[in-house]
Amino acid sequence: MTLSVSVADFARLIDGQVVRSSPVAITGVADPETAQADQATFFLERLPTPTGAGLVITQTKQDCPGTAAHITVAQPRVAFAYALAHFHPEPIKRPPVGIHPQALVHPTATIHPTACLGAGSYVGAGTTIGAETVLFPGVYLGDSVTVGRGCLLYPQVVVLDRGVLGDRVILHPGVVIGGDGFGFTSTPQGQLKVPQVGRVVLEDDVEIGANSTVDRATLRETRIGRGSKLDNLVMIGHNVQMGQDCLVVSQSGIGGSTKLGDRIIVAAQSGIASMTHIEIGADSVIYGRAGVHKSFPSGSQIAGFPAQDRLRERRQQVSLTKVPELLKEMRELQKRVQDLEQAQGIPRTPQA
Amino acid sequence: MTLSVSVADFARLIDGQVVRSSPVAITGVADPETAQADQATFFLERLPTPTGAGLVITQTKQDCPGTAAHITVAQPRVAFAYALAHFHPEPIKRPPVGIHPQALVHPTATIHPTACLGAGSYVGAGTTIGAETVLFPGVYLGDSVTVGRGCLLYPQVVVLDRGVLGDRVILHPGVVIGGDGFGFTSTPQGQLKVPQVGRVVLEDDVEIGANSTVDRATLRETRIGRGSKLDNLVMIGHNVQMGQDCLVVSQSGIGGSTKLGDRIIVAAQSGIASMTHIEIGADSVIYGRAGVHKSFPSGSQIAGFPAQDRLRERRQQVSLTKVPELLKEMRELQKRVQDLEQAQGIPRTPQA
Amino acid sequence: MTLSVSVADFARLIDGQVVRSSPVAITGVADPETAQADQATFFLERLPTPTGAGLVITQTKQDCPGTAAHITVAQPRVAFAYALAHFHPEPIKRPPVGIHPQALVHPTATIHPTACLGAGSYVGAGTTIGAETVLFPGVYLGDSVTVGRGCLLYPQVVVLDRGVLGDRVILHPGVVIGGDGFGFTSTPQGQLKVPQVGRVVLEDDVEIGANSTVDRATLRETRIGRGSKLDNLVMIGHNVQMGQDCLVVSQSGIGGSTKLGDRIIVAAQSGIASMTHIEIGADSVIYGRAGVHKSFPSGSQIAGFPAQDRLRERRQQVSLTKVPELLKEMRELQKRVQDLEQAQGIPRTPQA
Repeated sequence: MTLSVSVADFARLIDGQVVRSSPVAITGVADPETAQADQATFFLERLPTPTGAGLVITQTKQDCPGTAAHITVAQPRVAFAYALAHFHPEPIKRPPVGIHPQALVHPTATIHPTACLGAGSYVGAGTTIGAETVLFPGVYLGDSVTVGRGCLLYPQVVVLDRGVLGDRVILHPGVVIGGDGFGFTSTPQGQLKVPQVGRVVLEDDVEIGANSTVDRATLRETRIGRGSKLDNLVMIGHNVQMGQDCLVVSQSGIGGSTKLGDRIIVAAQSGIASMTHIEIGADSVIYGRAGVHKSFPSGSQIAGFPAQDRLRERRQQVSLTKVPELLKEMRELQKRVQDLEQAQGIPRTPQA
Repeated sequence: MTLSVSVADFARLIDGQVVRSSPVAITGVADPETAQADQATFFLERLPTPTGAGLVITQTKQDCPGTAAHITVAQPRVAFAYALAHFHPEPIKRPPVGIHPQALVHPTATIHPTACLGAGSYVGAGTTIGAETVLFPGVYLGDSVTVGRGCLLYPQVVVLDRGVLGDRVILHPGVVIGGDGFGFTSTPQGQLKVPQVGRVVLEDDVEIGANSTVDRATLRETRIGRGSKLDNLVMIGHNVQMGQDCLVVSQSGIGGSTKLGDRIIVAAQSGIASMTHIEIGADSVIYGRAGVHKSFPSGSQIAGFPAQDRLRERRQQVSLTKVPELLKEMRELQKRVQDLEQAQGIPRTPQA
Repeated sequence: MTLSVSVADFARLIDGQVVRSSPVAITGVADPETAQADQATFFLERLPTPTGAGLVITQTKQDCPGTAAHITVAQPRVAFAYALAHFHPEPIKRPPVGIHPQALVHPTATIHPTACLGAGSYVGAGTTIGAETVLFPGVYLGDSVTVGRGCLLYPQVVVLDRGVLGDRVILHPGVVIGGDGFGFTSTPQGQLKVPQVGRVVLEDDVEIGANSTVDRATLRETRIGRGSKLDNLVMIGHNVQMGQDCLVVSQSGIGGSTKLGDRIIVAAQSGIASMTHIEIGADSVIYGRAGVHKSFPSGSQIAGFPAQDRLRERRQQVSLTKVPELLKEMRELQKRVQDLEQAQGIPRTPQA
């Protein structure tokens, strides 16, 4: 297998130091528990464990099992990512370059000759697709959509009209880009729809997980900044402006018109309320299941519902666990005060 | 551009009053910040801001920038919706009228000649599609489905057998209508599936956001009332009966067999428990992230988890923020009582 | 209609006892409220109600309306499931056996001759499909996928490369199996993607609701145990190991690398945090909207956020409702202590 590498080449691949070499050719990466003599294994969060791996990679030098080769590397998780990428250049097999005869491409669309369009993919009028971009079978691109270079659009992805995708954007199956924002206004005849005439822009290196949705803006654009990564079943409301390198974990929802700075982490199942033009400053962390109703400055640690500073929230949570005891103490103290009052002849009625 | 209008015609379009006119032809609507001399802008929630717009629409007469024309209107948001609809009659371009050669239509299906069926759409046996209804590419309609007039079904929408859609129903990409309700019963051999043999009915003017799901009923029907609007990633369980003109914001879930009256607002990420036949009266509001476990009468304001009257919930929330202080006060008061007891010679042991 | 049965045969079908017979032929099952003279009805949770049904099934003998036949059965819900399955063997009509001419099947795929492949379904290289398995139109199976016997894959289902489905697996519309796990590692240049090279395994009799997603593992496999049932819009993270006969209700999320034992119930809108290798023991129940941050042993009853033992959580919740009253009592008691102090001539300053 041409992907197999010597221990020395493996060290070069991950920018590590060979502590102990061996003549074994490494053909892949595996968990410590299952790794074989021709496989490398990484000790990441876990403590060192017995392993049959032929090569062990750790952050600091340590006793390694048997005759296994040993490499140290400053950042094992980064090294792990590089090693996996070497051995698995295409974890999901792509359709071949070119336009499948059962793809449907509008004559005014512009498709780069190195792009791949799978069977049953659909490309609307005036849409442009860049070099080496892949549309798996069943992808739908509306009219006037722009897709950059090196994008991966998995089956059943939908990008409606005017959507803009930068380079190397990855959309997992079932992602919907550019549905109508949820805009209605009450009238005596019921809810009147506010047309949503804007678009969605996904900058370079954005990745969005399966069945997530990003609504298009009312007037201008909903924008996800360069390098931001969204997990599955995430909801991004209309007009949201998200900065660069954010992480939004699964089932979180960012309400319409929210502004998020760069490098924000939104943990799972959180929500930010819409319509109040909330702004969250850069480098903030929103903890899991938080419900955010107001703006926070850069570097905030945000938790709870209604969300507040995380330390304060934690202190409050801890105090709440003491309430049952507090109730008992109150009963007791009331009794003691009553005793004191009686001793002094104060004719107070006892508490109910 | 034929859609451009004079200031006087614009006022007629939105039923407003011209305060100051100008000879400019208005060609579109934009945000105050970006509006150009040939565009109208609305001051909605925001305070008046500097704008380059050629026409400013407000609720009450006010000083407008430079030479801009000015119209007042009783309900600016309604006017905003009408103006957008005028300039953007088709925000997402529809497929042409007729059946695309790559659509697949069962010979027993009935398709109105003014309907549009996109490429790769699928229509099952005995299914009926009304006038001017649009199936975008990749829509799936099962057997015996009924779709009314003027509906918009976006790509990858699925309506399973026996689903009924009224007129002007809008289903955004990835919506699933009529999946099996989640019905199982425990047996020593594991979970036994309860067949779900009912259907889903979406009345006129219902709109459902991307990747939301509405399950079909066990025996009869799951029903969404006329004019109700659901946002993205909403889950409607089997047998739910929802009234008219409700709003259900994103990522909320309505558990099986719940009954909702008319004009109920369910804010984002809320949940109503299933299986207990909860009823929520008309004109109630369920606030964001509420978790509802019991029925509420009409006009209720519902918040928290477990959900209760909103004012009561808020009072309780406020009281909880005082618990850390209360703990300190308790320690102090215990000390004072102990001092009193000692002064009286009461041999009580101090609190732990 | 050939499915109609006599009262005696109906009793045999559901393993029940005829209390009172009648000559009527039963042609279906209906709600008590709508049942007709040729229909059976079950009294399940509900108290007996007036009904026009020709056959009433209950757990214990009771007075039944008019001349209706009457059957008792030990487990009415199980009987209800069997009766519905008899009268509705195919609640959603399947495509005919064989490969639709508009299906696209890779020449190296192996399709059992009794399988049904609908129009526009796609089957990748080296993929295997077992006997009597049904792919509805628009299903996508990637390369090297294995699907067992008797599976139902509804429209727009996606199973990416190397996915393994046992026998009788049901995937509702829009389900995505095998999307990339959410694995990134921070670098100065932004988030670096950790390739996800594992797979998903769904064991026999697994059922997954509409638009739910199960991510593939980083290295090995994400596994859902035999007989487990997932509702709609559920998210299963990478590397999750779920036991047998679990129930996961809608909009819940199981974070990456969680281990769940057998027969666990996860109620709606719950979450289990990822990355901390949480283990939940068999036969546990996670109540609705719980947020779980730590492991729990078998048989646990888990509720709240942060989740804890349910009884403790409930006690704490009840105590919190008493805090407003507690605050009042504190004020009052402080006043009484102050009075006592004054009576003793202690010159203490009153509380603020």
